[in-house]
Amino acid sequence: MDRRIESLQRRCAADHRVISLGGGLPAPVLFPRRALAAAAARVLRRADDAALQYGWPEGGAELRGYIAAGLRARGVSDVSAEDVVITSGAQQAVAIAVEVLATPGARAWVEPESYPGALDILRARGVALVAGPDAPRARLAYAMPALSNPRGRVAGASARAALLTRARRDETYLVEDEAYADLCFAGPPGAPLLACARERVLLVGTFSKVLCPGLRVGWLVAPRALREEILEAKRIRDLQANGLAQWVLQDFLAHRPLARRLAHARRFYAARAAVLCDALRRELPEWRFDPPEGGFSVWLEGPEPGDDAALLEAAVAHGVGFDPGRLFVFDGAPRTLSMRVSYSLEPAERLEAGVSRLARAWRVFRRSARAA
Amino acid sequence: MDRRIESLQRRCAADHRVISLGGGLPAPVLFPRRALAAAAARVLRRADDAALQYGWPEGGAELRGYIAAGLRARGVSDVSAEDVVITSGAQQAVAIAVEVLATPGARAWVEPESYPGALDILRARGVALVAGPDAPRARLAYAMPALSNPRGRVAGASARAALLTRARRDETYLVEDEAYADLCFAGPPGAPLLACARERVLLVGTFSKVLCPGLRVGWLVAPRALREEILEAKRIRDLQANGLAQWVLQDFLAHRPLARRLAHARRFYAARAAVLCDALRRELPEWRFDPPEGGFSVWLEGPEPGDDAALLEAAVAHGVGFDPGRLFVFDGAPRTLSMRVSYSLEPAERLEAGVSRLARAWRVFRRSARAA
Repeated sequence: MDRRIESLQRRCAADHRVISLGGGLPAPVLFPRRALAAAAARVLRRADDAALQYGWPEGGAELRGYIAAGLRARGVSDVSAEDVVITSGAQQAVAIAVEVLATPGARAWVEPESYPGALDILRARGVALVAGPDAPRARLAYAMPALSNPRGRVAGASARAALLTRARRDETYLVEDEAYADLCFAGPPGAPLLACARERVLLVGTFSKVLCPGLRVGWLVAPRALREEILEAKRIRDLQANGLAQWVLQDFLAHRPLARRLAHARRFYAARAAVLCDALRRELPEWRFDPPEGGFSVWLEGPEPGDDAALLEAAVAHGVGFDPGRLFVFDGAPRTLSMRVSYSLEPAERLEAGVSRLARAWRVFRRSARAA
Repeated sequence: MDRRIESLQRRCAADHRVISLGGGLPAPVLFPRRALAAAAARVLRRADDAALQYGWPEGGAELRGYIAAGLRARGVSDVSAEDVVITSGAQQAVAIAVEVLATPGARAWVEPESYPGALDILRARGVALVAGPDAPRARLAYAMPALSNPRGRVAGASARAALLTRARRDETYLVEDEAYADLCFAGPPGAPLLACARERVLLVGTFSKVLCPGLRVGWLVAPRALREEILEAKRIRDLQANGLAQWVLQDFLAHRPLARRLAHARRFYAARAAVLCDALRRELPEWRFDPPEGGFSVWLEGPEPGDDAALLEAAVAHGVGFDPGRLFVFDGAPRTLSMRVSYSLEPAERLEAGVSRLARAWRVFRRSARAA
């Protein structure tokens, strides 16, 4: 990552006076602390050693079964626990998918704005990024059709059809990242693209957004032809995902169905999104955005080009942080000043205060940019 | 990994009637379940969200401080929490070190027999493995001087000097894997080589052998010049090590000094090693081994060449498992039939019964090999 941006982000995180509209962090008030503590106590009391001993690279069978059942309920007919690999978060699932699918020099199709962690993986692998409907044939595509990051939008029928066409016509593997799928404000997600192209899609999911990121438990569901290679990549990377979190999660999920918790989380984040969007319309009328349909954030585009890192520096000086647009843009060069602003972490009054500070920082930044 | 061997290993693990002398797993009876449960309860009760929220790639500051203090107490003067990166187990620490140090085609020096996980990482990176005192200049060396795996031996002064000479004269980076350092039967380990060559050594450690593997918490201490690159590699791989295990460990260590637990573990494993070695001398007199000075296992060399996977198959049919020698040999081709036999997991009576079964399997295998 850009060291100047990282150092600003670290300053934001370390100083509670700075209102954090960056990072895409879930709200700690939703962390199920008591239920996790009860699950941990049960897991550690049990005679079974699985949570603490070495395990196989694919992860715990019950947790894999839970994930497979969730996908079957969403219309993926041909999936079982055997098809799921538990990973150290969604980040590792994407990293393994990219390692197995692409060699350096290969091409990857991405959305014009995308999750920075995935872009970093692809770049580190030496893959050439392409975007747009007329991009040349690529070895793999990375997309978030269920809910995109940073835009927070659900892919429509034509965008989904285009992804499937690309996968079938060009024999492109699609890495379908569902990190935010359970947090669409309208309700539970429909069928993933995996249901339509079982042999072309590698589906990525995680408990980080709906439960806690600190557990670092994600998953990868891939075509069977790739399973051996994926398990080998997982084994070489870190042997297995951490057992304690896997077994705590499995116990937690057995005792508490997630559905009600997810319904509450959707309402909770939708309310914060509404507060942020109102404040943005009021305070930053020159900045354009589509209201999010779920997830944690809004993608903002400013009225002119500019240095988003310098704007972040001005914002931090005014006591507010955000994620600069360049981190999300596939070629690292946004056409206009842009940013991701997250409503997930901070309560309503801090969101409003944060946007006011951002608006002040923007006016100062704009004056000095024009003077320069 | 060889699929035939893996399938045999999975059969051993799934069937409790099979006595497991393979795997190098710690004894579950030493897992500090109650103390971990108490730590988990405290961590999850605390108002602080660090254990459950996203964190920075280097990991928790207190745990890093604990590891740095341990190294300073062992004579590494120039090390602080800032120099430690918490990894998802020692396996990931080695993987990151190799990724940062070597590009495909580079050369890596290894001991003639070594930890399979490290050999697999190096091979996957496209690195050429060399061994022996006259090996050509290499970009990096991987060794376990504190206690080797599979041999369970402490490197003597001349072997340590040779590693340092190689590092300085050839400008070779040394990956010093200390996974078993705290389990030398003679007592706490002395200074690591890191103390003598701060800018040439990347030290790897883990809580997996002395506490529980399922926590997946290890560490990497590297020269400062490499820190940025290492953090970036960690971030791209999985963002951060799991927070729950990090904070549980940190709390556990703050409440219970490890020293007494380690002293007990050393006596415990030394007693099991003695039982195994006695049984081996009695039942397999044609097989040579050096008694281990610590760790979990013994390296056995048979009287003639042969197919160690076929011997494993015969052994499993007799109700005992081990790790075939080819997994540990740098070129994958042991000069003689060999195996790693672990005494760490099974209690004394099962160790003795396991060696009896192994001896019977060996006699059957030898007869049929000679008849063929």
